[in-house]
Amino acid sequence: MPRPDGRSPLDLRDIRFETGVVPHHPGSVIVHFGTTRVLCVCTAEERVPPHRLSSGGGWMTAEYSMLPAATHDRKQRDISRGKQDARSVEIQRLIGRALRNVVNIDVIGQRTLTVDCDVLVADGGTRTASITGGFVAVALCLDGLFKKKAPMKAKKLRDVLSAQVAAVSLGVLDAQVLTDLCYAEDARAETDFNLVARDDGTLVEVQGTAEGEPMTREQLLTILDQGTAAVRELCAKQRAALGGIWA
Amino acid sequence: MPRPDGRSPLDLRDIRFETGVVPHHPGSVIVHFGTTRVLCVCTAEERVPPHRLSSGGGWMTAEYSMLPAATHDRKQRDISRGKQDARSVEIQRLIGRALRNVVNIDVIGQRTLTVDCDVLVADGGTRTASITGGFVAVALCLDGLFKKKAPMKAKKLRDVLSAQVAAVSLGVLDAQVLTDLCYAEDARAETDFNLVARDDGTLVEVQGTAEGEPMTREQLLTILDQGTAAVRELCAKQRAALGGIWA
Amino acid sequence: MPRPDGRSPLDLRDIRFETGVVPHHPGSVIVHFGTTRVLCVCTAEERVPPHRLSSGGGWMTAEYSMLPAATHDRKQRDISRGKQDARSVEIQRLIGRALRNVVNIDVIGQRTLTVDCDVLVADGGTRTASITGGFVAVALCLDGLFKKKAPMKAKKLRDVLSAQVAAVSLGVLDAQVLTDLCYAEDARAETDFNLVARDDGTLVEVQGTAEGEPMTREQLLTILDQGTAAVRELCAKQRAALGGIWA
Amino acid sequence: MPRPDGRSPLDLRDIRFETGVVPHHPGSVIVHFGTTRVLCVCTAEERVPPHRLSSGGGWMTAEYSMLPAATHDRKQRDISRGKQDARSVEIQRLIGRALRNVVNIDVIGQRTLTVDCDVLVADGGTRTASITGGFVAVALCLDGLFKKKAPMKAKKLRDVLSAQVAAVSLGVLDAQVLTDLCYAEDARAETDFNLVARDDGTLVEVQGTAEGEPMTREQLLTILDQGTAAVRELCAKQRAALGGIWA
Amino acid sequence: MPRPDGRSPLDLRDIRFETGVVPHHPGSVIVHFGTTRVLCVCTAEERVPPHRLSSGGGWMTAEYSMLPAATHDRKQRDISRGKQDARSVEIQRLIGRALRNVVNIDVIGQRTLTVDCDVLVADGGTRTASITGGFVAVALCLDGLFKKKAPMKAKKLRDVLSAQVAAVSLGVLDAQVLTDLCYAEDARAETDFNLVARDDGTLVEVQGTAEGEPMTREQLLTILDQGTAAVRELCAKQRAALGGIWA
Amino acid sequence: MPRPDGRSPLDLRDIRFETGVVPHHPGSVIVHFGTTRVLCVCTAEERVPPHRLSSGGGWMTAEYSMLPAATHDRKQRDISRGKQDARSVEIQRLIGRALRNVVNIDVIGQRTLTVDCDVLVADGGTRTASITGGFVAVALCLDGLFKKKAPMKAKKLRDVLSAQVAAVSLGVLDAQVLTDLCYAEDARAETDFNLVARDDGTLVEVQGTAEGEPMTREQLLTILDQGTAAVRELCAKQRAALGGIWA
Repeated sequence: MPRPDGRSPLDLRDIRFETGVVPHHPGSVIVHFGTTRVLCVCTAEERVPPHRLSSGGGWMTAEYSMLPAATHDRKQRDISRGKQDARSVEIQRLIGRALRNVVNIDVIGQRTLTVDCDVLVADGGTRTASITGGFVAVALCLDGLFKKKAPMKAKKLRDVLSAQVAAVSLGVLDAQVLTDLCYAEDARAETDFNLVARDDGTLVEVQGTAEGEPMTREQLLTILDQGTAAVRELCAKQRAALGGIWA
Repeated sequence: MPRPDGRSPLDLRDIRFETGVVPHHPGSVIVHFGTTRVLCVCTAEERVPPHRLSSGGGWMTAEYSMLPAATHDRKQRDISRGKQDARSVEIQRLIGRALRNVVNIDVIGQRTLTVDCDVLVADGGTRTASITGGFVAVALCLDGLFKKKAPMKAKKLRDVLSAQVAAVSLGVLDAQVLTDLCYAEDARAETDFNLVARDDGTLVEVQGTAEGEPMTREQLLTILDQGTAAVRELCAKQRAALGGIWA
Repeated sequence: MPRPDGRSPLDLRDIRFETGVVPHHPGSVIVHFGTTRVLCVCTAEERVPPHRLSSGGGWMTAEYSMLPAATHDRKQRDISRGKQDARSVEIQRLIGRALRNVVNIDVIGQRTLTVDCDVLVADGGTRTASITGGFVAVALCLDGLFKKKAPMKAKKLRDVLSAQVAAVSLGVLDAQVLTDLCYAEDARAETDFNLVARDDGTLVEVQGTAEGEPMTREQLLTILDQGTAAVRELCAKQRAALGGIWA
Repeated sequence: MPRPDGRSPLDLRDIRFETGVVPHHPGSVIVHFGTTRVLCVCTAEERVPPHRLSSGGGWMTAEYSMLPAATHDRKQRDISRGKQDARSVEIQRLIGRALRNVVNIDVIGQRTLTVDCDVLVADGGTRTASITGGFVAVALCLDGLFKKKAPMKAKKLRDVLSAQVAAVSLGVLDAQVLTDLCYAEDARAETDFNLVARDDGTLVEVQGTAEGEPMTREQLLTILDQGTAAVRELCAKQRAALGGIWA
Repeated sequence: MPRPDGRSPLDLRDIRFETGVVPHHPGSVIVHFGTTRVLCVCTAEERVPPHRLSSGGGWMTAEYSMLPAATHDRKQRDISRGKQDARSVEIQRLIGRALRNVVNIDVIGQRTLTVDCDVLVADGGTRTASITGGFVAVALCLDGLFKKKAPMKAKKLRDVLSAQVAAVSLGVLDAQVLTDLCYAEDARAETDFNLVARDDGTLVEVQGTAEGEPMTREQLLTILDQGTAAVRELCAKQRAALGGIWA
Repeated sequence: MPRPDGRSPLDLRDIRFETGVVPHHPGSVIVHFGTTRVLCVCTAEERVPPHRLSSGGGWMTAEYSMLPAATHDRKQRDISRGKQDARSVEIQRLIGRALRNVVNIDVIGQRTLTVDCDVLVADGGTRTASITGGFVAVALCLDGLFKKKAPMKAKKLRDVLSAQVAAVSLGVLDAQVLTDLCYAEDARAETDFNLVARDDGTLVEVQGTAEGEPMTREQLLTILDQGTAAVRELCAKQRAALGGIWA
């Protein structure tokens, strides 16, 4: 069965990074995965949470939220419901873990980097877009800190960032493994997978859920192969967006 | 004293409406007042609040929120603080009242129109931008309902919208009344004024606060004159953005 | 059309200040605007909020709440609904701004003055009664501080309070501007106005909302004239209540 | 050791009931126990909680709160702290149980009676004042319902109220049992007792806590005797306040 | 009428203390009152609340909660309802007061002892089981502190604990006073009583509520006698559970 | 490096199921994974959430919480912090998804099955213990429903449960893959993995996070093999615990 937008099973959607969207924050980017659009802004604050006070180093965390009109049916704001959406809690913890995997928080000074991922338009893959765009936002934010000579142990971007990190969603649909599902595909998939990896293809996080039929070992291997290939592509696009900063 | 961006006291900043930003919601627009950028999306839901159940008509309301990185210093999310920001509460009530002034909710069927105003970049005047952009979002949303022939008493846009509504901020700075303040001006102004008016210059809402020196009757009159002139200009730009819809 | 209580359009209701109602707080007063009755108590605490810590000066703030049975239909408590009533948030911000306009917080020491305005009986004009009674509560509280020789830069009441402040509601009903609306009038008014001014007639805050028909420039001017006249009267009554304290 | 206000150990303070304080609610009363002052308002709403829906009868409940300035040190509002004060929770449950003991909720129709007890001035004994004043508020509210011929099974006040209920605090101080403690006494008492009884001296609720030294059986008996005597006096004063209503 | 489990009116149910249930917390015990089962764990933390900071001493507090499936009908968690159950608030305050009556918090160092009482199975008497088991948990926790030579003024258990404390519920059912009610009895009782006493029979707290018929003085005396006898028995069982620790 | 408790890398800890722990709920079990102890209770309520109302079928969900003293350092209750712990949110969503994978909610009538997983003692692997014990609780609860002939489409346990489901944690520590980590191991592991599978070895959910060094493809394969072997063992123990019920 052909994909709604005519892609082959291994194709990513059109991926784009719009940088500089919030003029006063260098680490701001809108990442596009097809129609999905997430505003990722990394800001640096001169404070650390209690558990990092004695470390001499910093901290990095992420927050994720959908704007009410990002989905087809308007979604009530968290503050109106009185508590954070459980799905958002889960996603922002994933984004934070994924980015911390490549950020050396010991060398950024007593600072907290916060990556705010706010979904403007949701069409599947918002968490993987957030991680992929979040990495770009972190790199740009750190670059801004270096440019204004903010005091820290690290002397250059590569002292902080050991590698690139990006993420892609995958699914099994009619026994076929598909890369980077749009919402229409995601809603029908038997298995829902999110794969976070570094630019060298090593795995940072794997999360797979069988909605109906359980996964087989074989499917899992195909997912891994297809996913790491897609992440490599995403990392190439991140490098293009960062230009000279990530030379 | 010259204005930071070289404008004359009566000049608006560069005003722009980007429509169609959320593909699945026709009533979506990003409004620019200089660097200030607010995403306004009007959605229609097939339900009404309890106090409108027996009316046979609908309801319209607004919500306003700043994204955490919209300001220079990152602002904590409402849900993290556990309650909605008091300033946001005040602003969203103003936006709702302003828009309801020109919307005939009795003829839109048992529907709730919600205008979500999310500030992407804040540089002064976010509430007046929200009202001005919110009107465009409402018009586009209603146009979408008419286009898909949603059943309601109203037969055309003008049956629902009796007039245009727009808003502008004004301030007294060094005894001079200035139109459409940017953040740097707003922070220094002695008097802070928000004026909401219709396209015929009649007044929908006036809110003025003396931060230090109280206002004189004369200043108030200048504010009214300068404000209504600016609103007329804003209404012209709304019409340009709406094109044939608001013929 | 005659007013329900036979007043002429420019008449205030019967205004009364009962002082000394909470024996252990000198700054306590019940203000009556006709049937409307608000308990205003100003207390001084030896602490300041974070943003005033380094100032050497103090802070002043206000809180506003309706007792559940103040209105005809019992109103649920904020704590039962889990969040503060949006209207109360808006009103207490207005009260705080209005009072801060005449209080020099730089000379009251590292203290926070809190004016609690609790509505015992609501019959229209509770926010303007709160501001008008709040000023009396502040003056009495400060007088109490001076009497017990609390250390601060200010040496006498007039060092802290530069002027009196009072407020009145006005409305347009059947094209007539009315001063100090009771609830029955307020519910029918086309335009709802609150005017806060000093005893010399200069304007501290103006807030006007057209519920249906927009306001004209002419109506606004009449409102201003009628409102400042009423505030002058209210200030005279404040002076009578304060007696020798405000000589 | 003499009592601060010169009373003998068995004396109540000056007890007073001011009725009719909220003009639109017949069941409104300010009860004075010396300086302690509580506004008790009983309102009737035409709804019942889920667990009484099928009963055909009604419900009665109580809410208790201190105004922020009721105590010497200003007390933060519940809504600012984000949750109801634990002590208030305990007290309002006690008030509700005490009043329900004498109210036949089966004959008041599908109505909820809510008794709001808001402490204006706290000087010890606010919970016992609330119960004692609350009974008067309930009787006046029911009388109002009978007067406007609200439909219900009960035909007269005595069909609903089987007896009077009132409450008094007692304490052991320097081995002496004291009736109706003021705050200064309460803060020093070894044992803190609240006794709720009917006008015939039978016991509705007893709550005694030893703060330091445990109570002896003998002290408990003295407390019971002294407490029931005081309740009989309070009931006489309730009857005086109710006049012809409780004939 | 015979009791459901064949007990005589004065009999306690089968009482049992399972100690050592949480291996890493010495002060952990499951207390059984018949089928009722409560996990009581006392933990010591090296911090004190603000009001005890300057005392040089410590603090002790209790928390009480029912697991959702402890009752016949599943009970929603507090966090799902957004606020703590009012009954639990009342109970945990009682437990805290009861235990503080015998704990000398001035000699335990700058520590907070928290007794968590979580009801695993509820069949009446959960609050009295919590107090009775809580005392054992506190003694075992303190014993653990002494064993690891935690620095504090007290040199041995008896320096901290002046006496034992235990509690029992009683009720009046068909004019008969019953000791230690199970749920089926509790639901039918006219009067509900909780009695907290020391091992020497002196009273720490009495709480009695007439659900329907008020109590007479005579019933109250029988309750006191029967209750103190039961507490003496419970104290004997506590000593057996503590073994050599409480010699 | 040898494991703290002497196990070989592939060994599970001592696994035990104590059934019947809450007498009035047949679906109650305490599951032991070594020292880790979780009370899992499945209850059935005669209601379904809104999104299942029209389905004719039921729903199943899970809740997870740690008792405050389950960990070495006492953990504050969710209700005290005012919001549910983010980690708990994530875990209870996982438990729910895992169990729903084998439960046919379409045939259990208009019922909601809730599996409450409350951690009594935490020593690593609480989420995998919850899933493994949760399955037993669900089977016992359903068996109870069949025994009391509760009306539903399903005629026997196997009509509802298509397979067994169980879970195990795995980790990479010093380049070695270990099965069923205790807390001391978990804290040091480079990679943290949770694997949920059916009794036939097919995969229901995989969740792996690299804390430091990213995972290689080879490690992932070892984890899969070792994990599915462990799940088969856990399923055998589930069958032993269920006895004749799961024949």
